[in-house]
Parts: sequence; structure tokens; C-alpha cells
Amino acid sequence: MQTVRVALGSRGYPIYIGRGLITRIDLLLPLLPQRRVAVLTNTIVARLYLDGVARALEQAGVDCVQVVVPDGEDHKDWQTLNMIFDTLLAKRCDRQIAIIALGGGVIGDLAGFAAATYQRGVPYIQLPTTLLAQVDSSVGGKTAINHPRGKNMIGAFHQPIAVVSDVGALATLPVRELRAGLAEVIKHGAILDATFFDWLEGNAERLLRQEEDALTYAVMRSVQIKAEIVALDERESGLRALLNFGHTFGHAIELGLGYGQWLHGEAIAAGMVMAAHLSTQLGLLDARAADRLRRLLSQVGLPTVGPPLEIDRYLDLMAVDKKAVAGRVRFVLLERLGKATLGDAVPLPTLQATLRACSGRSPTDT
Amino acid sequence: MQTVRVALGSRGYPIYIGRGLITRIDLLLPLLPQRRVAVLTNTIVARLYLDGVARALEQAGVDCVQVVVPDGEDHKDWQTLNMIFDTLLAKRCDRQIAIIALGGGVIGDLAGFAAATYQRGVPYIQLPTTLLAQVDSSVGGKTAINHPRGKNMIGAFHQPIAVVSDVGALATLPVRELRAGLAEVIKHGAILDATFFDWLEGNAERLLRQEEDALTYAVMRSVQIKAEIVALDERESGLRALLNFGHTFGHAIELGLGYGQWLHGEAIAAGMVMAAHLSTQLGLLDARAADRLRRLLSQVGLPTVGPPLEIDRYLDLMAVDKKAVAGRVRFVLLERLGKATLGDAVPLPTLQATLRACSGRSPTDT
Repeated sequence: MQTVRVALGSRGYPIYIGRGLITRIDLLLPLLPQRRVAVLTNTIVARLYLDGVARALEQAGVDCVQVVVPDGEDHKDWQTLNMIFDTLLAKRCDRQIAIIALGGGVIGDLAGFAAATYQRGVPYIQLPTTLLAQVDSSVGGKTAINHPRGKNMIGAFHQPIAVVSDVGALATLPVRELRAGLAEVIKHGAILDATFFDWLEGNAERLLRQEEDALTYAVMRSVQIKAEIVALDERESGLRALLNFGHTFGHAIELGLGYGQWLHGEAIAAGMVMAAHLSTQLGLLDARAADRLRRLLSQVGLPTVGPPLEIDRYLDLMAVDKKAVAGRVRFVLLERLGKATLGDAVPLPTLQATLRACSGRSPTDT
Repeated sequence: MQTVRVALGSRGYPIYIGRGLITRIDLLLPLLPQRRVAVLTNTIVARLYLDGVARALEQAGVDCVQVVVPDGEDHKDWQTLNMIFDTLLAKRCDRQIAIIALGGGVIGDLAGFAAATYQRGVPYIQLPTTLLAQVDSSVGGKTAINHPRGKNMIGAFHQPIAVVSDVGALATLPVRELRAGLAEVIKHGAILDATFFDWLEGNAERLLRQEEDALTYAVMRSVQIKAEIVALDERESGLRALLNFGHTFGHAIELGLGYGQWLHGEAIAAGMVMAAHLSTQLGLLDARAADRLRRLLSQVGLPTVGPPLEIDRYLDLMAVDKKAVAGRVRFVLLERLGKATLGDAVPLPTLQATLRACSGRSPTDT
């Protein structure tokens, strides 16, 4: 088992990474305010892991309120959140309850936001079961629900009290989701660690074959990079924004197609290609580096072109005010592999050229 | 103008108290992240003050998004909150927007919770226009909406960046609301400051006549007491719970009658009488002190008996588990006027005796 610590003073917490950790309640016991938790999961993950987790909790003498919600990004909304509150209140959970998020990024975001707002805030623990959640969303305390007008528009910064990443759980992950998770792993290399990027190029096949030591290393290194950034800029006033590489474009893709059509990681993959193209156009990034990024994403089976939306639709979705300079929207750009920077003065024609060059076909019609 | 500071380090903020402050945008300008704000108010307050505030903002060069919601506690819900989010998103308000709460406690709680969760948190300013909001809810960063199963069940701790209390605004306040506000003023004396309690007994008539210097002193002293407690215990892990004197009973009254039937301050008044009665029964409080509290509340026109609900209904509403000791619910008790304490081992029969002795008639059927 590897341990990474997020250094946030009184809000700091451990991240445990290894095989078979999902039922290691002994890791959680010292952190619980009382011998009662609420486990939030979805119908898919419940079938795989809920019984095991609930039994382990019970054996440890911890009372377990179960909340099972429908699967999918389109349920990351107020309606589902309210269902969670209904259950917590019906079961008379008080401010000492800890919420355990058992599932992927949607469950983590929902559970985290429920924990941030239930009775003005209760503790929560992340038990991420997808690669995407293990390498990204479970760490850093960003919680949210979606709004019809935008993804993650309603939320809070609320740090978990622990993250337990069981890489064994990735064995049950559909390959499409494994690939989507690799998008964020590749992102971490691209923006901050060229050596890690090199390693990913050399180990892509091992990761796709789900070799445990490769996965453990990829999760650990991703989490270390993210934990460092979060410790320096918890509330995203600067540095942390670099983690949004590919996300301005990616969110537009997700929103334009309707949440859940493309997986988050798929949208981010195409978005990173766009952001790298934009960086190249602006003279920041060598075209060969942009190509290396595109090839690595392609190698792990991720889309490298955006869906065929109108350019104006893309601009609308990115909230670009077309009367002003496109620069009103801030982009994360690359200077080289391993070094990202913020850009907020992108000329509209340049942005339009990138969108034209990098969109056209959806992954389902290739 | 009086200034009280809430000492919370980087989350600290000034409270300005005085006449005519509602249009003093110069107090706010140094605090705004950008020259754009969203003013949240209700239909009633909008008629009285929105034009003046909007004009003052405009003259100061601040763009003003207006959000007007229906009046009343029963609109402190998700539906209204979502309407606020809809407007903010439609107007493309970004994370630099500051929300101004122009109104009473409901508006302050709604605006504060909207600010806590809009795009994971934006700053907000309280411009309280009721006595209740000026002496209590505008200070301390407690924000929330109601849930059908309980008041303020969904919320966040999110401190404002400033509070501007215009005592001139109290002139337009219905006398019933003025009285309700005095309940919290009296509470502050009862739990923490016997000298202030004495002063209130001597100045009740002046306060009811809305004499400005008396009101200013009452607001300032209340806010000082509350600010001190909040600075010592921002997230209510101990000391701050004393501010809930009368609230366990009071919330049961509000919930049992349906939000908005009794004003919050009215419910708290009856709740404080109940809590004092309980303290007396437990041998903590002299019966004469309990009587002084009851008489002062009665003198300012507040109810001193709870509504005629069944005793079991009261217990349900207070979430008392009747199979366990009633002590599972924590009560704020008085040891003397000016000194409160927490009690969590109240025998069920004692609690039932208090409920029987202190409920029966509603203020509308006296």
C-alpha cells in the first residue's frame, strides 16, 4: 500500500493506494466521528461492491446507512442530491455522520457536495472505483452538481477526510472507462511532469492490459502531482487552474452533446488536443510536442477530434462573448510537454481555426 | 456610524451600523472583486429599497444584476435557490461576482447559500433590513435553505465580506417583525450579558417606539456579543451552540405550524420560555430569573407559550427518540441570566412536563 498525503494543515488527509483496500475499514476507523456512516453509491457499483463494504463496516461495528442512486452523469443533479438528503434526514443522520462515496467521479462529486451542505457540512471519505476518480476527482475537494446551463456550476470546495483507492477495483472497469481515466493521467504528465509523460508513452500498453504495478504507479504519480498543486492552491486562485488543461473545450463537448454521451475523459482528450493545437497556433508549443500528445491519446484509444458541432455552437458552449475578444475565456496552454501556462488573450479567429481543425467526427462514427 | 469587526483572520469582516448606510456604496467598493454585483431581494423589500440601492451602485460605476424572489420563509427552498442560479448563469456572472443580500433573514440565508455554492463559492455582502437580520442572521456566516423534513437542513458556513446594517431601514418594519427581532436581542442578553439584559428591561419601551439611539445600541451590543462567539467558534463545535438558546423548541414550533405561520423570533421567544422552564425544573435556574425572562418577552409583545400541539408531536418535531433518553437532543439551558450552558441528559418526563406547562395557546388566539 502506498500513502500520499495532501498537505492542507487541519484539512489535510491521507490517500491510500493499493489492492484490496476497499474493505480495509481499519484505515477509516480512526477518522470516523462516530460508529455510523452513510455509504453513497450507484446501482452498478452497488452490485459489485456494496455488500462487501457494508459487511466489512458491520464487522467493524459501524452502522451503515445505504443510499443507492441511479448511475450516470445526468443524475449528478439537484434531484438526486435531494434524494440523498431525504434518506439522511429520514434516517436521522446528525452532524457526526460521515458520508462514504463508493463509486466514480459522479458519486464522488455528489457525495462530496452532499457532505459539504448537509446540516452545513459533515465529513466524507472517497472510495473511488474508477481510474478517473482515483487519479483526479477524488483528490482536492472539488464537489459539485450540474445545472442545465453548465457542468459543475453549483458546488463547494470541501476536502474529504481520506481517500482510499483500491486499484483492484479497476479490474471490473469497462475498458472505455479505463481509457477515459488515462486521459487525466496523461494530462498530469502533459502539464507538469515530462518524465512521467515519457513513462506513459513507454507503458501505455501495460496500462491498457491493466498490469497492477503499472496502474499503481500511474495512480500514485497522478495523485502526487495533483496533491502538490492542491496544497499550493486549494481554491483555484491560480496554479490549480492548470489542472483544467483541455477542460474549457472538454466541458463544451460534454455540454453540447448532453452530459454522458461522451465520458468526461473522452471529452478532455479531444479538448487537450484542441488546447495543444491552440498553443501551437499561438507560437507557444512545438508542433511535434502537440503531435506526441495526440499520438499518446490515440494510442490508449481516446478521441483526438471533437464532435461535429457548429463552430458558433462551440463558442456559445464555451461562453465566449463573440462581441468581445475571445480572450474573455481563459485557456490552459502548453509551453512544452510538462509545462502549462494560462492564456487569456486568444484572438477569436485563432480560436475558430483550432475548433475547425480539431472537430468533425464523433468517436461513434469513426 | 459604529463599526464592529468579526475577527476571523482571512475570513474576518467589518459590520457597519448606523442610519442611512443602505446606499453608502463607498463602504463596499474597496471590497468588490469587480465592478459588478448581483443584488438579491424580495418583492416587498424591492419596492422599498431596490431602486435606491441600484441607483447608488450605478452612480458608483457598479453593474447591478437584480434578482427578486417571492417574500417569505416558505420560499427559502431549493426552487427559489435554483431561480437565483438560473439568473446568475443567464447573466453570465462569473466567480468574481459578489452577491448582495438586501432584506431580512430569509434573503440573507438564501443569498449566503447561493454565494457559498455558485461556481463553488463567490463573495457576498449582507444589507439586512430587518432587526432580526441585523442582530443575528447577517453575522456569522450561517447560510441555509429549508427542507420539508427540517429547517436549515441544507446549508454551509460561508462568511460575508461585509455587513451593512442601516437602522434607518427599521422604520419601515412592521411592528410584529420589530418584536420578533427583539427576541434575539433579548436572547443575547439572557445567555451572555446580564448587564445588557438589565438595560433591555429598562429600555424595552424605547425600543418599541423605535428610538434610534436605543436601536443602534441594541444592534451594536447584539452584534458584538455574536461576533465574539463566532470568532471563538466559527463552525459551532461548542460555544457557538449557546446562541441556539430557545431554538430546539423554537424550530419545533416553526416546523409544526409550517414555516412562516409564526415568525422565527416569535417561535424563539416561546422556545426560550420553555428552555428557561426546563432549566428551572433541572434545578439550574432560579424561578425568578425565568420569570424575568418571560416578563421581558411579554413586555415587548412576544408569545411566551407555545402553540397547542400534542406533546408527542413536539417530541417528534424535536427529533426526540422516545425509545432512548430524551437526552439525545441537546438543549441550551440557563444557569442564570447572562450565563448559558449545554445540557444533553434531560429526562423525558421532565421535558414532557415543560412542554405541557409552556404550550397551549397560539398568539393569534390570545
